[in-house]
Amino acid sequence: MSSSAAMNTGASSSSADHNNRNSYAHDDDDADELDLFEITDGPDILRDDPLRDDLAEPLSFKRKQKQGFLSQPARLLNALTGGPRSAGSPSRLYDSPYTPSLTTEGLPSSSRLDPIPAGSKDGVPLDWYVEGPGRRVGYEDLTAIDWIFEYTKERQRLRVLHASAKGLLGYAHQFLDASQVWVVLVLTGLAVGALAAAIDVATDWLGDFKYGFCSTADGGAFYLSKTSCCIGYEEQAKCFGWRPWSTALGIGSAEGKWFIEYFFYLLLSVSFALFAAVLVKSYAIYAKHSGIPEIKTVLGGFIIRRFLGIWTLITKSLGLVLAVASGMWLGKEGPLVHVACCCANVFTKLFPNINNNEARKREVLSAAAASGISVAFGSPIGGVLFSLEQLSYYFPDKTMWQSFVCAMTAAVVLQAFDPYRSGKLVLYQVTYSSSWHGFELIPFMLLGILGGVYGGLFIKANMHVAQFKKSAAWLPGPVVQVIVVAFATALINYPNNYMRAQSSDLVSNLFSECSKLTDDQFGLCKTGAASAGTIVLLIFASVLGFFLAAVTFGLQIPAGIILPSMAIGALSGRAVGIIMEIWQHNHPAFIAFRACEPDIPCITPGTYAIIGAAAALAGVTRMTVSIVVIMFELTGALTYVLPIMVAVMISKWVGDAFSRRGIYESWIHFNEYPFLDNSEEMTIPDIPAAQIMTRIEDLVVLTATGHTVASLTAILDGHPYRGFPVVSDPRDAVLLGYISRAELAYNLHTATQPPRSLPPETEAFFAHQPLADPRSTLDLRPWMDQTPLTLPSRSRLHLAVSYFQKLGLRYVLFSDRGVLQGLLTKKDVWYVLNGAEETRRTSNPSGGLGGRDDGGQGGEGVTREDGEGEQEGLLRGEGMMEDLVSPGVDRGSIL
Amino acid sequence: MSSSAAMNTGASSSSADHNNRNSYAHDDDDADELDLFEITDGPDILRDDPLRDDLAEPLSFKRKQKQGFLSQPARLLNALTGGPRSAGSPSRLYDSPYTPSLTTEGLPSSSRLDPIPAGSKDGVPLDWYVEGPGRRVGYEDLTAIDWIFEYTKERQRLRVLHASAKGLLGYAHQFLDASQVWVVLVLTGLAVGALAAAIDVATDWLGDFKYGFCSTADGGAFYLSKTSCCIGYEEQAKCFGWRPWSTALGIGSAEGKWFIEYFFYLLLSVSFALFAAVLVKSYAIYAKHSGIPEIKTVLGGFIIRRFLGIWTLITKSLGLVLAVASGMWLGKEGPLVHVACCCANVFTKLFPNINNNEARKREVLSAAAASGISVAFGSPIGGVLFSLEQLSYYFPDKTMWQSFVCAMTAAVVLQAFDPYRSGKLVLYQVTYSSSWHGFELIPFMLLGILGGVYGGLFIKANMHVAQFKKSAAWLPGPVVQVIVVAFATALINYPNNYMRAQSSDLVSNLFSECSKLTDDQFGLCKTGAASAGTIVLLIFASVLGFFLAAVTFGLQIPAGIILPSMAIGALSGRAVGIIMEIWQHNHPAFIAFRACEPDIPCITPGTYAIIGAAAALAGVTRMTVSIVVIMFELTGALTYVLPIMVAVMISKWVGDAFSRRGIYESWIHFNEYPFLDNSEEMTIPDIPAAQIMTRIEDLVVLTATGHTVASLTAILDGHPYRGFPVVSDPRDAVLLGYISRAELAYNLHTATQPPRSLPPETEAFFAHQPLADPRSTLDLRPWMDQTPLTLPSRSRLHLAVSYFQKLGLRYVLFSDRGVLQGLLTKKDVWYVLNGAEETRRTSNPSGGLGGRDDGGQGGEGVTREDGEGEQEGLLRGEGMMEDLVSPGVDRGSIL
Repeated sequence: MSSSAAMNTGASSSSADHNNRNSYAHDDDDADELDLFEITDGPDILRDDPLRDDLAEPLSFKRKQKQGFLSQPARLLNALTGGPRSAGSPSRLYDSPYTPSLTTEGLPSSSRLDPIPAGSKDGVPLDWYVEGPGRRVGYEDLTAIDWIFEYTKERQRLRVLHASAKGLLGYAHQFLDASQVWVVLVLTGLAVGALAAAIDVATDWLGDFKYGFCSTADGGAFYLSKTSCCIGYEEQAKCFGWRPWSTALGIGSAEGKWFIEYFFYLLLSVSFALFAAVLVKSYAIYAKHSGIPEIKTVLGGFIIRRFLGIWTLITKSLGLVLAVASGMWLGKEGPLVHVACCCANVFTKLFPNINNNEARKREVLSAAAASGISVAFGSPIGGVLFSLEQLSYYFPDKTMWQSFVCAMTAAVVLQAFDPYRSGKLVLYQVTYSSSWHGFELIPFMLLGILGGVYGGLFIKANMHVAQFKKSAAWLPGPVVQVIVVAFATALINYPNNYMRAQSSDLVSNLFSECSKLTDDQFGLCKTGAASAGTIVLLIFASVLGFFLAAVTFGLQIPAGIILPSMAIGALSGRAVGIIMEIWQHNHPAFIAFRACEPDIPCITPGTYAIIGAAAALAGVTRMTVSIVVIMFELTGALTYVLPIMVAVMISKWVGDAFSRRGIYESWIHFNEYPFLDNSEEMTIPDIPAAQIMTRIEDLVVLTATGHTVASLTAILDGHPYRGFPVVSDPRDAVLLGYISRAELAYNLHTATQPPRSLPPETEAFFAHQPLADPRSTLDLRPWMDQTPLTLPSRSRLHLAVSYFQKLGLRYVLFSDRGVLQGLLTKKDVWYVLNGAEETRRTSNPSGGLGGRDDGGQGGEGVTREDGEGEQEGLLRGEGMMEDLVSPGVDRGSIL
Repeated sequence: MSSSAAMNTGASSSSADHNNRNSYAHDDDDADELDLFEITDGPDILRDDPLRDDLAEPLSFKRKQKQGFLSQPARLLNALTGGPRSAGSPSRLYDSPYTPSLTTEGLPSSSRLDPIPAGSKDGVPLDWYVEGPGRRVGYEDLTAIDWIFEYTKERQRLRVLHASAKGLLGYAHQFLDASQVWVVLVLTGLAVGALAAAIDVATDWLGDFKYGFCSTADGGAFYLSKTSCCIGYEEQAKCFGWRPWSTALGIGSAEGKWFIEYFFYLLLSVSFALFAAVLVKSYAIYAKHSGIPEIKTVLGGFIIRRFLGIWTLITKSLGLVLAVASGMWLGKEGPLVHVACCCANVFTKLFPNINNNEARKREVLSAAAASGISVAFGSPIGGVLFSLEQLSYYFPDKTMWQSFVCAMTAAVVLQAFDPYRSGKLVLYQVTYSSSWHGFELIPFMLLGILGGVYGGLFIKANMHVAQFKKSAAWLPGPVVQVIVVAFATALINYPNNYMRAQSSDLVSNLFSECSKLTDDQFGLCKTGAASAGTIVLLIFASVLGFFLAAVTFGLQIPAGIILPSMAIGALSGRAVGIIMEIWQHNHPAFIAFRACEPDIPCITPGTYAIIGAAAALAGVTRMTVSIVVIMFELTGALTYVLPIMVAVMISKWVGDAFSRRGIYESWIHFNEYPFLDNSEEMTIPDIPAAQIMTRIEDLVVLTATGHTVASLTAILDGHPYRGFPVVSDPRDAVLLGYISRAELAYNLHTATQPPRSLPPETEAFFAHQPLADPRSTLDLRPWMDQTPLTLPSRSRLHLAVSYFQKLGLRYVLFSDRGVLQGLLTKKDVWYVLNGAEETRRTSNPSGGLGGRDDGGQGGEGVTREDGEGEQEGLLRGEGMMEDLVSPGVDRGSIL
C-alpha cells in the first residue's frame, strides 16, 4: 500500500553472491556491426516530468569507435554477464539525482493497493509479482507511449475511485472526477475563442500598420485597424481618420507617396518577420512551422516535451500575429490548432489525473485541435471532422462529443467577441444568391484537376526547398532566412494589387459575389474587370504566391499552409470564373449556355474562387470531408456542396497520383517522425513479419536468473536498447516477459541507494525463486511486463501492423510454442513503411554496411542501418528537427 | 492454381487405415452437463450464399435428453474418437447437395495462386500447407465474420490485380476496380434520394387520404395530397378542390360530419396498419421495426441473411408508407436507414468483388446508412456523424468520405425532387429571427432534464411492453396486435387536435416561430394561444404520445422511434416555452426578464420546442454530436447550437442515470444480438480472461494426428461447436491451430465424394506427415488457421475485449509457453458484458444447473448456461426475434 513498494521489500544489505552467468547467444556471424552507438548522456526520464518545460539540454549522442571486442562471438555473452565495457562510455546513468515524486506519479495506482478484489474467483491472490503489465517509471522524451498500459492505469484509478466512493460524498467525488475533462475542454474552448479573437484583432491592426495608422487628431485612436478606424465610411478612400505613412510624413508627389509607402511596407514587413523569428528562436523553437505534423505525431502516441508548453503557447500566439501581419504567404489556421492544443495541455496541468495519463491527455488534445479549426474557419463541425480525419489516431468516436463541445464553445466565444464587427466568424464567409448550372461542372472539374496539380507540385517544391536547406551547409541561419524571404515577399507583394493585401482580405474579395461586394478593393467587380488583363494578373499572382508559399512554409516562424493554398486556389479559380464569364458574355448562344437565363448574370466568378480554394486545399492536405464541411459552413448552404465535393474528390485523386502523402505527411516523413499512418494500410508489403523482426540471434535478451545488480547495470551500460525480453534459460528461450530500460535502470539504481543499499553483487532475478531472501535479493518481476503480447512468427506483417495501430503497442514479441523468436518495434515497422531504402540511400551513402546483403534479413538490415542513418543525421545536425529525431538506438529499441 | 486445390491433391482412394485414437480429457468432474444440445438440421452454410433471400426454413433445434453415457469421464474420449453417438440426432450434415460455386467464392483468391512472390527473402517457398490463416468455405447465417481474414482476402485480391495489371489496359482495369465502390455509393445515393422523395409524396397523399381526397371535379387530381391540391390558397380551409369525406358523402350536420370523418379516420388508419403488417408478415419479416439495432449488429460483423435483401427493401418501403400514413406514433427516420442499407446491399450484388467480401460490404453499408439519415432530416453531415456515432463499428474514418459522398448525393437528389414543393428537404426545417437570452438557459436545461427522464422512462416502458409480449403466450398474433394498437391510436388521436395530424406536420408547427407561420393549423399562434389550456393540451398530448409510442415501437411493422420522440419532446418543449412566455408577459419586471427588449416578443416558444425535441431524442438514443448537427442543419444557424448542446448533454447524463443503454442498445440486448459495444468499455469487469475462457479441460480439441475421416465426422456429429482447436498431442497440448466446423465439414464431405471418393477409414491429419501419401490421406492443414491469435492466459479481460473489438476477431486462444490453456469467443465476452446473471435468472429459472457453484469457473458457468438459456428461449418460441438468436452452441462456439 506504499508507493515505494520496490524499496521496502527489503532493507538489509546481506547478499547472496552467486552470479550464475548465463548467456544467450547463437548465430551471430554478423553481430560485429551491432551496438556501435551508445547514449553518453543517459536517459533522462527519471529526472524529468513528461512535457515539463524546463528540460535540460537535448540528448546528445556520440558515435563510439568500432571496438574489437564487439566483433567476437562472445559479445552477447559479455553483454549478458556484464563483461568488459567500453572505456569511452562512462556510466552516467545515475549521475543526476532521481526525483522521487516522479517514481510515484509514474506508477499505476494499483501498485498502491491490491489490484484484485478479495473475492477473486480463481481463489489465488494475484499481485504484481506474478501478474500484470508491470510497473512503470514513466516515458523518456521522444518515445512512444503504451496505450494499453495507460488505459489500464486509468481503469485501475477509476476502480479505486469507485471502490472508495461511498455515500453522497463519494458520488460527488466521482462526479467531480468525471467533470474534470469537461472543465478542461470548456476552459480550452473559452481560451481558444478569446485567443483567436485577440489574434484576429492584433493581426488586423498590425497588418494595417504597414500602410499607415489611425490618427487620433482625426477622431481615431492609434490602436485601431483601418476597418475599425473607418467604420461608417462607405468607401475607405474617404476615411480621414486613417493616415497612410505618406500623408503622415507629408509627402505630396504621387511617386514619392508610392515609394515612401513601399519603403514602410518593406521595413515593417521585414521587422515583423524578424521579431517573429527571434521570438521563436529565443523562447520556444517548437513554435515554428504549422505544428500539425507534430500534433499528428503526438496524438499518434509519441512524447515530445515542451512542444505543448506554456512558452510555446505564448511564443506561437505572438509570433503568429507578427508573422501574419508581415504579409508573408502563410496562414494562421494550422498554427491555431497548435495554439489550441497548447491551451488544452496547459489546462490539463490543473488536473493530475488527466495530466499523468498520456492516453487521456491525447483525448483532450484531440478535442482541443477541433477548436483550433473551429475558430480558424468559424466552422465547429468542420473542426471536429478535421480532428477526426486529419489528426486523431486511436480514439475517433470516443472523443467526438468532447471535440464538438470544445469546438462549439470556442466558436461561440469567438462570435461573442465578434472581432471583425460584422457578425462573421471569419473574414471570408460568403453567401451566394444564385445557384450553379449543369454545364459549370466541367470548369469545376477543371478546377479540381488544377487543385490536385497545384497540391502535388507544391508538396514537391516545398520538400525540395526543405531538402536543399538541410543539405546546403553554407546557408545562413534560420533568422536570416526569414529576413530574406520576408524581404523578397514584401518586394514582390507590394507592386501587385492582389498580393499587397492580407491573404484573408484577398480571399474574402475573391469569394464574393459582385452584387454583394460593398468595397471593391481589388477592382474585381468594376466595369471592365472581366478582361484578359485581370485574368493574367490573377494567374500571375497565383504563380508568384505558389513560389513564395513554397519557400515560406518551413521557415522558423509560425506559419500555416492552409490560407496560402486557399488564396492560390481562389486566384486561379476566379481567373477561370472570369474566363467563363467572358465566354458566356461573348457567346451566349453557345449550346452549353442555353441554361442561362437572360438579363441576369449567369456565371458567378466568386463560386469558382471558392471551389478553386477548396480544390487547392484538398490537393495540398488531401483532406476531403473536412474541407467540404468547412466550405459548407463558410457558405451556409447546400447549394454549392455538390460541385465542391466533385472538385475536392478530383483534386485528391490527381494529388494522389503525384504522391500518396499530403503536405503534413510529407513533413512527418521528412522529419522522420515515428508516425504510423492508419491510411497507409495498402502500402504495407505483404511479407511475413519474421522478415522484418529482429531475430532472437540478434537480440540482447536477459535470462530469468543468474544476474547480479552489477551484471545488469553492465548490460544497461553496454547496450543502448530501450528494453530487453526475458527468457527462461539460454537453451529453451521460453519467453517470460519484457522489461524496459527505464524500469530496469530505476530498480538497479534504487536498490543500491538507501534505504535498501544493496551491494552490487546482490542477486537479481525475473522468475519465482522460492528460496530467495526478499531482503537480500532483487526481485524484478513487479517491473517486468509478464504478459507481453506475442504473435506467431509466421504472422503476416499486416497483422503486426494492426497490433501497433489498433492496440497501440510499442513492440510485439514473436514466439512459436512459447519460444521467443524475435522482436518487432513500432519503429521497425515505421522504417519499413516509410521507405527504409530511401533513408539508406540518402543519409548513409558511405556507410560501411551498405554492401551487406540484405537478402533474407531485410528487417534487420533496415533497422540496423536506420540507426546509423539517424546517427549520421544527428551528427550532421543541420536538419531543422534534429532535436526531435529519436536517439540512435537501433534494434531492440522502442519508439 | 486451381480453385479446388483440396480436391485434386489426390484422386485415388487407397487408404491407410490406422486410427490412432487420441484423446484429450482431464478434470471433467462436471462435464456431465455438457453437450446436451445438438443441431439436428446441420449447418447450412454449404448450400447457401450469404444474404441470399431464398434461404430454407430457419434452423431448428431440439433439446436432446440427458443421456447416461455423457456423464462418464470418458465422454471427451468418446467425442474425440467418434464414440457412441446419440440415436436421436441423425447425421443430416450432408443431406443437401453442396453448391460448388460457393466453395470457390468463399476461398481467398490467393488459394488460386502462389501467395508469395518468387523473391521471398526467406527463400522458403510458402504455401497454404504451412502458412496462413487457412482456407475458408464461407459463413453460416447468424455467425460473426472474421475481419482480419476478410481484409487479408481483399489485400490478396488487390495484389493479384496489381501484379496482373500491365500497360494502359491494366491501369484501366485497376481504375475500374477502384471505382466500383463509388458506383455503388452514387447509385445508392441516387436511389435513396429518389426513394425518400417517393415515400414522402406517397405518405403525404395517403396520410391526407384519411381526411378526404382531391376532387377532379373541382380542379384537383385524385392522386394529389391536400397541400398539392390546395396550392395557391392562402388558407387551406378555403381550398375547394379538397373534399373531406363528410363533404363527399354529403353529410351536412356538424355532428354527422365529425362522426363520419372520425369513422373514415379510424377505418383508414387501421387498414393502412393492417396492410403494412400483412406485407411484413408475408414478404419480409425483417422489414419490421426500425432496423437500426440489426444494422448495428450487422455492421459489427454479424451475418444476418435476408435482412438486407431486395424483398426487405420493397416491403419496408411500402410498409413504411402505409405505417406512417396510418397516423400511428412512429417515424420513418430509422426505417429509412434500413432502406438505404438495403439499397446499397442490392447494388453491391452488381460487383462480386465487394459482394463477396463481408468487410468491404460493411464499409459500403456504413456509408449507405449515412444517406438514410441524410434524407430523413435533410442533414447530410448529420447523417455521416450518425453513421459514425451510432452505427459504424470497425472503420470509422476510413469510410467517412464514402459516407459523405453517399449522403450528399442522396440529399441533392431529394432536393432536386423537392417532394414538399417548398425547397425544404424536410417538413420541419425552420429558421429563427431572434436569438436567445442568457436566462433562457435555465428552462433549456430543464428541457434537457425532461428529455433525459423521458428517454429513461420510455426505454423502460418500451422494454416492459416487449418483455410482456414475449412472456404472455395468450396474446394474439402480431398482425392482430398491430390492428389493436392502430385502432387505439386512431381512437385517441382524432379527438386531440395536436395528435390528429401527421407527426411531421405537428413537429413542423411546434418548431415554428409565430411570425413566420402562414397556416396556423394547430392554433398555436392565434391570439390567446398562450394560455393554461394550451399548455394542458400540449402536455396531455405528449403524455398520450409517450404511451402510444411505447406500445407501437416493437410491433411487426416498419416503425422508427426518432420522430415520435421529437414530437413528444417538442410538445413538452412548446409547453415550457408558452409557460415562459406567459410568465414574461405577466411579470416583465422580473429580474431575469430585464434582458428582454421592450415591444418585441422576448420568448420564442418554437425554440423551446426544438430544444425539447433534441433533448428527447438524446434521452432515447443517447446520441450527442449527430443530434446537435442534425438540429444545426435543420435550423441552419449557429445561434441555437449552444443551448441545444447543453440540453442534449444534460439529457444524456440524466438518461444514463436510468440505464447506460439507449433504445437501440436495449433492443440489441433484448434480442440478444451478439454486438460488442465499443462504448461499453467501462463496464468490462476487471478480471483475468482466464476466469471467463473455456478451459482446455472443457474444450473439445483435436489432436494433430490419429484421425480418420470417419472419426472426425463422428466428432462433428457429436458436437455442435463451431470450431475446434488443434493441439500437438494429448500430453503436451501444444497449440497448432484452429479449424472451424464449416471447413472441417466441407473437407470431410468432399473427401468422400467423387472425384476423391476416399473411404471413411482414410487417415486425416493436421500436421506435417512426411510419410503420408497425399493421394490416400486427407491433409487438413490448408483449411486450418495455423496462426491463430493467442494471449497469455493471465491477460486481463480488457485486453481480450480489445482484441475482439479492435482487431475484429471471432475467438482468441489462450496459451502459456505454447501450451493451449483455453478459448474465449466473442459470444462468451458478449454474455459477460451483457449481464449473464440476468439471462440466467430470467430465462433459466428451473435449470438443473442453477445450483452449481460458479466460484472460480464463472466464465464456464456463464457460457454453459447461456447455451441452455438460449435453447429454452428458442423452445418457447414466442420472442419476436427468435429466428435471429444464434444456435445454442455453447462453449467452443463462435459467434
